[in-house]
Amino acid sequence: MSQHIEHPDYHHKQLTIGLFGFGVVGEGLYQVLKQTPSLKASIKRVCIKNPEKKRNAPAELFTTDRDELLNDEAINVIVEVIDDADAAFYIVKTALLGGKHVVSASKKMIAEHLTELLQLQQQTGQSFLYEASACASIPVIRNLEEYYDNDLLHSIQAIVNGSTNYILTKMFEEKLSYRDALLQAQQLGFAESNPKLDVEGYDAVNKWNNLLAHAYGIVTSPEKILFTGIQSVQAFDAQVAEERHYVIRLVAQAKKLESGKVAAFVLPQFVQASDHLSFVRNEYNGVVIESGFADKQFFYGKGAGSFPTASAVLSDISALRYDYRYEYKKLYHHTPGELTNDYYLKVYLSFENVEEVPKDKFEWIEEWHAREDRKYLVGVLHVQHLIDSDWWKTNGTSLVLLPNAIIESLDLQKLKKKSLELAGLQLHHGFKQW
Amino acid sequence: MSQHIEHPDYHHKQLTIGLFGFGVVGEGLYQVLKQTPSLKASIKRVCIKNPEKKRNAPAELFTTDRDELLNDEAINVIVEVIDDADAAFYIVKTALLGGKHVVSASKKMIAEHLTELLQLQQQTGQSFLYEASACASIPVIRNLEEYYDNDLLHSIQAIVNGSTNYILTKMFEEKLSYRDALLQAQQLGFAESNPKLDVEGYDAVNKWNNLLAHAYGIVTSPEKILFTGIQSVQAFDAQVAEERHYVIRLVAQAKKLESGKVAAFVLPQFVQASDHLSFVRNEYNGVVIESGFADKQFFYGKGAGSFPTASAVLSDISALRYDYRYEYKKLYHHTPGELTNDYYLKVYLSFENVEEVPKDKFEWIEEWHAREDRKYLVGVLHVQHLIDSDWWKTNGTSLVLLPNAIIESLDLQKLKKKSLELAGLQLHHGFKQW
Repeated sequence: MSQHIEHPDYHHKQLTIGLFGFGVVGEGLYQVLKQTPSLKASIKRVCIKNPEKKRNAPAELFTTDRDELLNDEAINVIVEVIDDADAAFYIVKTALLGGKHVVSASKKMIAEHLTELLQLQQQTGQSFLYEASACASIPVIRNLEEYYDNDLLHSIQAIVNGSTNYILTKMFEEKLSYRDALLQAQQLGFAESNPKLDVEGYDAVNKWNNLLAHAYGIVTSPEKILFTGIQSVQAFDAQVAEERHYVIRLVAQAKKLESGKVAAFVLPQFVQASDHLSFVRNEYNGVVIESGFADKQFFYGKGAGSFPTASAVLSDISALRYDYRYEYKKLYHHTPGELTNDYYLKVYLSFENVEEVPKDKFEWIEEWHAREDRKYLVGVLHVQHLIDSDWWKTNGTSLVLLPNAIIESLDLQKLKKKSLELAGLQLHHGFKQW
Repeated sequence: MSQHIEHPDYHHKQLTIGLFGFGVVGEGLYQVLKQTPSLKASIKRVCIKNPEKKRNAPAELFTTDRDELLNDEAINVIVEVIDDADAAFYIVKTALLGGKHVVSASKKMIAEHLTELLQLQQQTGQSFLYEASACASIPVIRNLEEYYDNDLLHSIQAIVNGSTNYILTKMFEEKLSYRDALLQAQQLGFAESNPKLDVEGYDAVNKWNNLLAHAYGIVTSPEKILFTGIQSVQAFDAQVAEERHYVIRLVAQAKKLESGKVAAFVLPQFVQASDHLSFVRNEYNGVVIESGFADKQFFYGKGAGSFPTASAVLSDISALRYDYRYEYKKLYHHTPGELTNDYYLKVYLSFENVEEVPKDKFEWIEEWHAREDRKYLVGVLHVQHLIDSDWWKTNGTSLVLLPNAIIESLDLQKLKKKSLELAGLQLHHGFKQW
């Protein structure tokens, strides 16, 4: 096969990029593009907020005037990797309406404006790609988009935030304090500038919100999804996890229930050693997709850091050369999925003061444990109750899901009977201890 | 977001399938399609070889006359999952020339006819998809096709044959004999009808041959690739592996060397416990892709069995609804990669009779071990020697690669000096024992 054959469909497309943001990801992308001439993509201009900061690139590349990029006819691609969601949306919107393709890494902005962004894509016909906004280097959006027909996707479980996973790993494996682990993550460039976005689960739920559109055709908003982060996880919980041969991970899940509707949430979870997600340590991300016929598939890669994120941006830029755009197949070409809160979760809950636990809200409690420093229980709660209340994530209370935590409404009574029979003895015994 | 929005690009394409083959995969696909009405794909007719065999489908579906499918204008997709590579090529060629899209699972046929199949795709403009032909359920072809620009793909290491991996796992973990493990694999439908194809590495090298086109734009043929299977691996080797905290896997590899050329081979290998590939057990497959900026990515899923393979065929059928075709980007749009045999491999070799080991062919030997039942050494060989000879896989000799076995020509002398200095004592000591 000669190397000079030209493919008939090949468009030799030169991409001229206007880049917004020159933080770890923006600079990573700049370095990556310099080392990848075959991509035929070059950065013409970079818009930054702070002109005083020293940059590892020629000064003439930079401007603080966004219109210099947005109004430049020679620029046909806007890449946006800034922290400010409102500014990012203005940039993306203006660029799409101005006939430019856009690549973005702003999960928060996309989560907040998903409906408008879908409309803008339909209206303008421009590509809007954002692989970097979920799981960094793992090509999860495009795989969900191209595979797993709506009928076939049973569930997805994923670790989508590298920063919290790094912190949890260091807390468990090296017994670092939460504070020291967070500091390390920030120094290594894995954590958002505002750590609250990572550790309280906002970053994860934003990503999950966006992935739900590609996985199930569900267009929703983060505040409708049950979530928390790892801010309440205690050394005590880690100890219980170890005793039970679990690790704790912050897991984003979506599962098609027997009703056909979809349960989706982001919560800390006990993960069994045999679970693929226990393989995911430090700043890595992992996605387990369970489908009707392929069984479980597992995608694993770096989920944070400058180069992994830049490489995802790069893969989108590369796709633009072939005019790739998301088709949102499950949204537009199938009957889109629908979220439900009508199901139950089996949870582990540790706390200092039993008075603050509303025992009557539990469907049942099958374990009670009291230790000198802290108490914990295992019980079943309705998801709507978790959404409507916040006692389970305040006042030093810590909630962690059991493995296979989802209990469908149909199965509740049967499981309740079985669990209480099994746990009967411990239950009475436990009660006496309080 | 209403669920009635029609995407402007949406083609409501009805696929009418002519299916060749109704073995485990063919029947799996038939079952899968019956359960997936949203795909808008139906099987009109199935061509089989043996009309006497009882089938789990209505008799009127079947024919033994291939022209009934190939000449049927209503059939717009041919799916071919038969065992006979020559018949498969005739079917694929006739179908493409007849204006039909083709989905195939025949790695052997594709490997043997890759050049002609590339030409047929260019000539006819029809889609020819074959995700099922490599790693079954793992979408490795499409990910290699869409990601990892030629410059960025450092290496791929993969377990691509579920049957041999199943056998190795059972031999190691359950101490089954090779024969019993093979029998189990066949009973479970993981092994090819001719087990030689699996266990002697033919299946793996065929897959690797085809993946090289998508990974590096290399169009070659299996006989130009260094390979063997697991037929020579002994219980003794497994014992040595265990002592060194390794497992043995049949690993297909491709790596871009410093010269810019690509080393590619399929050989048994010692795999470290920390290596992603040690996670891959039983009939599963796994692919580790190392790229310039994303670092290591790992894809994992079922690599054998009726439904996982059928699900990959299904994903290709689904892609046809959107007129997807492989672009062979690295072949046509970049400078294609080039294979080289100018490098060295560090190997473990166990044998009965030292006279049959051509010691002078080694660059150096850094370990000698003699046990009562068997002897082994660790040394470095030029790849061209392995290609030109077969003493290393005959007469009870067993070769297993060390982890990170590739030694580039540039580095040979430096490494030789270092290794011999380190191993000096054992070397003399070892010699005395023989």
